[in-house]
Amino acid sequence: MLNNKITELLKVEYPIIQAPMAGGVTTSKFVVEVSNSGCLGMIGAGYMTPIQIREQIKEIKQSTSNPFGINLFVPNAFKVTENEVKSANHILNPLRHQLNLQPKDSFEIPNFNDVLETFIEQIKVVSEEKVPICSFTFGIPSKEVIAELKRSNIILMGTATTVREAVENEKAGMDIVVVQGSEAGGHRGSFIDGDQESLVGLMSLIPQVVDNVRIPVVATGGIMDGRGLMASICLGAKGVQMGTAFLTCIESGAHKVYKEAILSANEDQTVLTRSFSGKWARGIKNEFILEMQNYETLLPDFPVQNTLTQDIRKTSSAQNNQDFMSLWSGQSPRLAKSITVESLIKSLITEAKKINSYI
Amino acid sequence: MLNNKITELLKVEYPIIQAPMAGGVTTSKFVVEVSNSGCLGMIGAGYMTPIQIREQIKEIKQSTSNPFGINLFVPNAFKVTENEVKSANHILNPLRHQLNLQPKDSFEIPNFNDVLETFIEQIKVVSEEKVPICSFTFGIPSKEVIAELKRSNIILMGTATTVREAVENEKAGMDIVVVQGSEAGGHRGSFIDGDQESLVGLMSLIPQVVDNVRIPVVATGGIMDGRGLMASICLGAKGVQMGTAFLTCIESGAHKVYKEAILSANEDQTVLTRSFSGKWARGIKNEFILEMQNYETLLPDFPVQNTLTQDIRKTSSAQNNQDFMSLWSGQSPRLAKSITVESLIKSLITEAKKINSYI
Repeated sequence: MLNNKITELLKVEYPIIQAPMAGGVTTSKFVVEVSNSGCLGMIGAGYMTPIQIREQIKEIKQSTSNPFGINLFVPNAFKVTENEVKSANHILNPLRHQLNLQPKDSFEIPNFNDVLETFIEQIKVVSEEKVPICSFTFGIPSKEVIAELKRSNIILMGTATTVREAVENEKAGMDIVVVQGSEAGGHRGSFIDGDQESLVGLMSLIPQVVDNVRIPVVATGGIMDGRGLMASICLGAKGVQMGTAFLTCIESGAHKVYKEAILSANEDQTVLTRSFSGKWARGIKNEFILEMQNYETLLPDFPVQNTLTQDIRKTSSAQNNQDFMSLWSGQSPRLAKSITVESLIKSLITEAKKINSYI
Repeated sequence: MLNNKITELLKVEYPIIQAPMAGGVTTSKFVVEVSNSGCLGMIGAGYMTPIQIREQIKEIKQSTSNPFGINLFVPNAFKVTENEVKSANHILNPLRHQLNLQPKDSFEIPNFNDVLETFIEQIKVVSEEKVPICSFTFGIPSKEVIAELKRSNIILMGTATTVREAVENEKAGMDIVVVQGSEAGGHRGSFIDGDQESLVGLMSLIPQVVDNVRIPVVATGGIMDGRGLMASICLGAKGVQMGTAFLTCIESGAHKVYKEAILSANEDQTVLTRSFSGKWARGIKNEFILEMQNYETLLPDFPVQNTLTQDIRKTSSAQNNQDFMSLWSGQSPRLAKSITVESLIKSLITEAKKINSYI
């Protein structure tokens, strides 16, 4: 049961993928550690420049011969006016004041074509470096991009939050589809269906997707241990992707304060917010989320709002202050542990085998 | 694995409970059918008078010697002003007009003491009739009520949507706790934690509750087949409770139009609404939900809003018009089937055993 199509396809020992968390969590050391533990380590490269991406790929290749993967954000068209940016800054300035940051007024609105161009360059690097696996969030890339990566024999994974999104991923030629349940921490990967409608729990999402696609399904959202792995397999998934469980590991690049916030949180402390980035994402409720609650829907789209809040998040982080950091977490923080990647995987596999023997 | 503490406790063959759906679904014939199939049939008695309850219990006892259960709503204090009722009627009147119903203006506001008194009478009937199992939604009854039912040797089940709610149920003396995932159709059973915070998917909720209580945990929400049963058991639950899966069965008392709505729905068509009853509940999006969307939070509390919309729901139902009916459904409608209860259970158990043999 632990050796299946996915382990063959990804050339890993266990059907476990480390979620490609962006924003400094997936350091080379961490990705290497995960890949060396028999799982698939992933670079969360959504916010990285093509140059940074190439450097990290080279670094990882030097430290492991095991497969690893990379995740990119498919650019979504966005529209934003100068007035929207002004009003967002107006809302954010009192928070900046609390952190002794300069207030902001104007802001250079990013150009969608520039975002697209960066994406194409990111793809070029991934293709040239022949990263074994490439996954996508926020949509499906163009036919040309898919064709280019396939020519480099790269295995492609898409993200879906509904059956329809999974079917579209299969149609586009993805080799694997990662289905993201409503339990998942961080950004929602939905790109077709509405916000509320695409918040489907894994107990419902996995079997309904499995019944409607032929490519292997990987489950993600709230999975932290052998129980979650075995449950996902019972529901028809071929493997799991875990974010929060890996994030609190000793080797992860997440900020100490961030790890502590997860380790002391309960299942009823995460909420969905678009205040940090302009896209809905699940994180632990903190001062920032509370103060922004009433403006939630007025803020500019991703990635504009993300850029706007950058100074706040960075300063809060530099001050070891969790109040204004994005504390992405799935709905199972009570199951998070501060252990090494090796211990996490060992105990997970032992638990999975034990469940397998008694059910 | 299918014979465990729960099956012994409930004296049933399979660890499967039919969710106590209120509003005419759980006819005596249906409950008997479920109990005769080796599962636990349940009367959804939340809206029933003590006299109706006694009649149905007697009817069921005449048709089966197998155990069955009953569910009651724990009364929640509510506050409502005449103005709130007026404004709710003002919002509802255009809908009434569409159904050729008389507009309404005034309304006799129910008295909380009357609601409480009815509850105590319901308890008295359940106790006198020694119904084998009694479950509760919307809270935990008083010590006196719990003591009375225990004197009649009735097994008690509470409902929880978070770890804290599960722990409170255990402390109060419940024998079993039903954990309701965010996937679940119908009313949210949360009674301590906030609306968004208590929307925890089963993949996260089950293991976190199991780690924190000693009483057996039953999972509910989106579970429709052998896959869901086995997944729940892997996560640590001792059994499952299924609503939508039983609702579309041939023997259920649900309206034909309602069954058809579920059978043709997708996983991304259910939403949470409090427009029908004043309490958040998951159902298939229809005309009523869409028209009420903007007033969602302005409506009176449960059960006032429920009484206010009664004429609309009843008339819509009588006209075979699904537009203004409450179409409660979990997030797995693609897995719903129009089959007999017997076939549902047979295929579920066959599937569960198959999964058990290959994982």
